[in-house]
Amino acid sequence: MKLFKRIAIVGTGLIGGSLAMAIKEKKLANEIIGISRHKKTLALAKRNRIINKGSQDIRILAGADLVILATPVSAILKLAKTISRIVKKDCIITDVGSTKQQIVSRLEKIFINYVGAHPLAGSEKRSLANARADIFKNSLCILTPTKRTNPSALKKIEGFWRSLGAEVAYLSPVEHDRLLAFVSHLPHAIAFSLIASVPKNYLKFASSGLRDTTRIAASDSVIWEDIFLSNPKNILKTIGVFEDKLSALKSAISKKDKVSLNKILRLAKNKREALG
Amino acid sequence: MKLFKRIAIVGTGLIGGSLAMAIKEKKLANEIIGISRHKKTLALAKRNRIINKGSQDIRILAGADLVILATPVSAILKLAKTISRIVKKDCIITDVGSTKQQIVSRLEKIFINYVGAHPLAGSEKRSLANARADIFKNSLCILTPTKRTNPSALKKIEGFWRSLGAEVAYLSPVEHDRLLAFVSHLPHAIAFSLIASVPKNYLKFASSGLRDTTRIAASDSVIWEDIFLSNPKNILKTIGVFEDKLSALKSAISKKDKVSLNKILRLAKNKREALG
Repeated sequence: MKLFKRIAIVGTGLIGGSLAMAIKEKKLANEIIGISRHKKTLALAKRNRIINKGSQDIRILAGADLVILATPVSAILKLAKTISRIVKKDCIITDVGSTKQQIVSRLEKIFINYVGAHPLAGSEKRSLANARADIFKNSLCILTPTKRTNPSALKKIEGFWRSLGAEVAYLSPVEHDRLLAFVSHLPHAIAFSLIASVPKNYLKFASSGLRDTTRIAASDSVIWEDIFLSNPKNILKTIGVFEDKLSALKSAISKKDKVSLNKILRLAKNKREALG
Repeated sequence: MKLFKRIAIVGTGLIGGSLAMAIKEKKLANEIIGISRHKKTLALAKRNRIINKGSQDIRILAGADLVILATPVSAILKLAKTISRIVKKDCIITDVGSTKQQIVSRLEKIFINYVGAHPLAGSEKRSLANARADIFKNSLCILTPTKRTNPSALKKIEGFWRSLGAEVAYLSPVEHDRLLAFVSHLPHAIAFSLIASVPKNYLKFASSGLRDTTRIAASDSVIWEDIFLSNPKNILKTIGVFEDKLSALKSAISKKDKVSLNKILRLAKNKREALG
């Protein structure tokens, strides 16, 4: 049975495009509508039969019973009001934004049937060209309901993500942003700063260690600008925690304190191995 | 033609064990001798026919025409004098230590035919169980000759690494340690500190970004204690460079300075993409 009649995806990039592919493969909708700022993206999506209809004009989503906002965070915030004037009253709205406090607080005031979501999938790559139907399989999707969230909309969105093969976890928007600051935003801040530190003429001597620690520094700057600016307090706090750990390491090195140094390195190794 | 009659490898762990395998595969010696502190390692090496003879007693290397020191840095420094009393006068000595200034300055005083080397191969894994014959293929091996280095020994060591499929680059020990501090030691310092920053109960929400940025934090603590303490000045300097970059990012976030933030992220992305 189809979960939805007509799903509209706003932003058919890496995540939005992968969603369209996965929805089609799992037959979760009768019709998939794509909205993108880019004509070329829409043409590619139609050529590959990922979407049934596509437009640069957001009014095409009128009549959808599920709208998925898959643009950078600031565009989600910006588009919400306009979309609210177009969609049917009973339409369910969800998003895939990487930060949730700002988005949820704004969108649940605008929409009756809004459910915040953040699939922990994707990579440093972007755009429809890198989209794949299977990126949500065995991934984790965090849903961020509040007391305002309509339980039946929540149930449908949870069923939607499970149908795509994702595991679903619930966190409050506050918990989500605090947690993601540590497991995602901090590593990105570190990777951006690390690659910036290495002199360009030394890059040819890089081995897999530098490559892996900085892979996510190739992430899209527009997406990450939005993430940093929509979760600044938590991110600055996690950077502070990191700075304390780095200071302890520096101090052990400069004092040639073998005991402290070995303890720091062993604890790090154990924790990393626990991560698997 | 065999490059050497009898090669002795001191330390048959990940690198030493991989070297024994590769030497055997490429038929670069008539006989491979392994020295390890661990009986089990020697038994495994003999059972897998990686070495012809093995011992915990370093005196077994008498008669070798090439000795490769593949222990942690501090053990290389410690063993050198003892080994000098055992080996033949014309024996070539080399090592695979990750820092070179201390090692080269000490070992070239002790041995006439010493050549410093650092193959940029291996991973966060350790021990013979993870050794593989092909880890040097298409890798880069840095040789660190000085004006004291015997040219014919250098030529033989360069030929040795090329025979294993490695590309060879020459750097002075000073240049090597300055450069490796940026492309290897700094990323390790960062990875150790990053995994230490993440609360343990958040690890289950980690996605590939955190996994990749911290992979090398699972590296062996004894090996890395030695690396940090044998190149402290350069490492502390690179950490300083990193801290400046992180400060600039923090400042852009806290001031909500979109222009600076986007510039930082775009430069990082471009540099990381140049790394390939």
